[in-house]
Amino acid sequence: MTQVTFAKLKKITPQVRYCAKQENISALQLSKKIANGQAVIFSSSLGRTKHICAVGSGLKTKVNVNIGASTDKSDVGLELKKLRESINLKADTVMDLSVGESIDKMLQLILRNSSIPVGTVPIYQAASIAEKKKGSFLKMDVDTIFKSLETQAKQGVDFFTIHCGITKESLSVLKKSRRLIPMVSRGGAIISAWMKAQNKENPFFEYFDDILDLAFKYDIVLSLGDGLRPGAIADATDAAQIKELKVLGQLVTRARAKDVQVIVEGPGHVPLNQIEKNILLEKKFCKNAPFYVLGPLVCDVASGYDHITAAIGGALAAFYGADFLCYVTPAEHLRHPTLEDVRDGLIASRIAAHSADIAKGIKDANLWDNQMSYARNKRNWKKLISLSIDPEKSSKLRHSIRPKDLKTCTMCGKYCSMKLIERCLN
Amino acid sequence: MTQVTFAKLKKITPQVRYCAKQENISALQLSKKIANGQAVIFSSSLGRTKHICAVGSGLKTKVNVNIGASTDKSDVGLELKKLRESINLKADTVMDLSVGESIDKMLQLILRNSSIPVGTVPIYQAASIAEKKKGSFLKMDVDTIFKSLETQAKQGVDFFTIHCGITKESLSVLKKSRRLIPMVSRGGAIISAWMKAQNKENPFFEYFDDILDLAFKYDIVLSLGDGLRPGAIADATDAAQIKELKVLGQLVTRARAKDVQVIVEGPGHVPLNQIEKNILLEKKFCKNAPFYVLGPLVCDVASGYDHITAAIGGALAAFYGADFLCYVTPAEHLRHPTLEDVRDGLIASRIAAHSADIAKGIKDANLWDNQMSYARNKRNWKKLISLSIDPEKSSKLRHSIRPKDLKTCTMCGKYCSMKLIERCLN
Repeated sequence: MTQVTFAKLKKITPQVRYCAKQENISALQLSKKIANGQAVIFSSSLGRTKHICAVGSGLKTKVNVNIGASTDKSDVGLELKKLRESINLKADTVMDLSVGESIDKMLQLILRNSSIPVGTVPIYQAASIAEKKKGSFLKMDVDTIFKSLETQAKQGVDFFTIHCGITKESLSVLKKSRRLIPMVSRGGAIISAWMKAQNKENPFFEYFDDILDLAFKYDIVLSLGDGLRPGAIADATDAAQIKELKVLGQLVTRARAKDVQVIVEGPGHVPLNQIEKNILLEKKFCKNAPFYVLGPLVCDVASGYDHITAAIGGALAAFYGADFLCYVTPAEHLRHPTLEDVRDGLIASRIAAHSADIAKGIKDANLWDNQMSYARNKRNWKKLISLSIDPEKSSKLRHSIRPKDLKTCTMCGKYCSMKLIERCLN
Repeated sequence: MTQVTFAKLKKITPQVRYCAKQENISALQLSKKIANGQAVIFSSSLGRTKHICAVGSGLKTKVNVNIGASTDKSDVGLELKKLRESINLKADTVMDLSVGESIDKMLQLILRNSSIPVGTVPIYQAASIAEKKKGSFLKMDVDTIFKSLETQAKQGVDFFTIHCGITKESLSVLKKSRRLIPMVSRGGAIISAWMKAQNKENPFFEYFDDILDLAFKYDIVLSLGDGLRPGAIADATDAAQIKELKVLGQLVTRARAKDVQVIVEGPGHVPLNQIEKNILLEKKFCKNAPFYVLGPLVCDVASGYDHITAAIGGALAAFYGADFLCYVTPAEHLRHPTLEDVRDGLIASRIAAHSADIAKGIKDANLWDNQMSYARNKRNWKKLISLSIDPEKSSKLRHSIRPKDLKTCTMCGKYCSMKLIERCLN
């Protein structure tokens, strides 16, 4: 039985009760959203984590952090530091995107140390096994893929990204496209290269029913990956992207029929004026399944600052109805992220999510801001720092230079507007 | 004769020709916009700067950097470094917001070293003179204010912020409001405190015709300041803000009748869902005068990261029709900005401006992105770095860790999607 099954039976689970409380809504309301597929709960049947969360329509916008080793940079200690810092800075979920040799060890440690839901891209493990056993991921067999899924499910992973929208047909649409950058999805490219080498259909698509059975068994949320997401604003909302989105929409229907929780992944690089349309298309084709966006980045030229391009796009996407933001770090497009990059990326995404929550009227989202503004007007610096999204950074900036008048700051000093106007209005 | 006079006479000035070329539009098109007040050119009659620019409807979104001493931190060398760095990083204009004793020297040096248009808030100089001569800015006389305006005009300042929308009437609306933070404008608070102390009307409002005569004489662009801009999202778009905006709209009409170039300043702290409305109200009440926004910041809690909250709001504001973005640094609300803060603030605003230009269809705005994406797909790292918005930062991140395969990066390494898909599609 999954959360969907219970919800359809109108049984309120402890998980629903816990998440509803976090969301400031009734358990019944949340249960209804889960029954009709508008929300999911990340909480595999193993019950590994206490701090689970729900994602979906009308709920607070959640933020995911990606960590994990790459083939070039594999340092378990560093990735665990990133995990701890992400939890401290209130990430809602974390994905271990490790590739390469240290996958198993990394995932084990991350699961052991994570108090929040964990997601993975199981094809990375399958690819790594094939590399080891057969010398190339292109020789990976379907059994290996399924074994990786089951292994990770048994370890306690809460959600899987599976690139099931890449099919022979959608790749043929891609081939005919004149994209500036044909593909930017690592998982999507692995699958595509494998399909070409083996001349086979995508096993995630072909054996989708088997994946559903496994997801049902462990109540894993399936995150339907967008292997064809645009990686350049010129490629946004093109035929290849929409073709894949429609495939994902069909798979959403199949997942729901089997009581499997499912969300859909989205772009990518999208100009500001196409963001609303992208959200509406996902909600339409995927029947209001929760939308998990990577960005969107609103221009292509800001390497080194893509946490900002993603915060702009993410805020707007969430405002228009995206439910779940994947963080982007300043290192995006340039290097494997450092601890500092993770910090910067997470805070930027949290700003985007919170700003959208205020704007879309999530209940009491603005209370935090009102407390902050009250403290600011009183020049209550201690309170102001403790309320800020990153008290450590605020404190550092505030205390880097001592104001002459401790009730003001070094910017306006004696001309502090809040101080001056106080006298005028009294 | 001002740029407006020439434009109304259908005479194309060298300044219009220069700016039109930058904008990729015809000189006649730009001249028409100036004649009807939809655009201005920052280029005082003294012809101090070569790199002038136009601001207005249908033109590229421009970015302003604020520098200058505070009463707590006054270091001429540092401010000149900020100026140089801002010019390097392609700020369009700079405002010297110095307050305190070093105002004259600072402005002189900034004007001498700035190759871009310079703006000021002349009330700061008047306040400083009154402090020196009479012991308090509250004792400032109207003559001193006008002398400051003329002195700075003669020095070659290109635009003035004057807080002329703060009137006895608008302050009475403020008094009745239940704002969390009554006032966050330094210039506005100085004027308000002076009005209260002297029990007089705002001289910028009362003697607006004299200001227009002076602005006409030197062809200074007047930037009508928003002393009542909201400083908390709870205060956004309230009666006090709208009252002031309507006053500014009336003053726009009076400025146009006297051939004075004029722009209007805007908020501030505004939630995402009220940004479009704010732009539409300004365009309506101020008859399409160019709109210069400070932010808007889309939440109140991100002290230490307000360059990001401002980039989110600024991108959206510019997309909906704001013409000119004032940068906000990470130091906002916390301290006088460092050189690094200025850098971060400027780049964030430039990202916002450029992303909006792509989205609102500014001609060829996306060419830069397309070149970048082409280079990215080819993994042409040298080109990719040189095309990025801050090549120095991109280079630093790229070269902080050496990839095993120099054609990829350390994030995806051997699983580089662009490399993998190349083989599939050929």
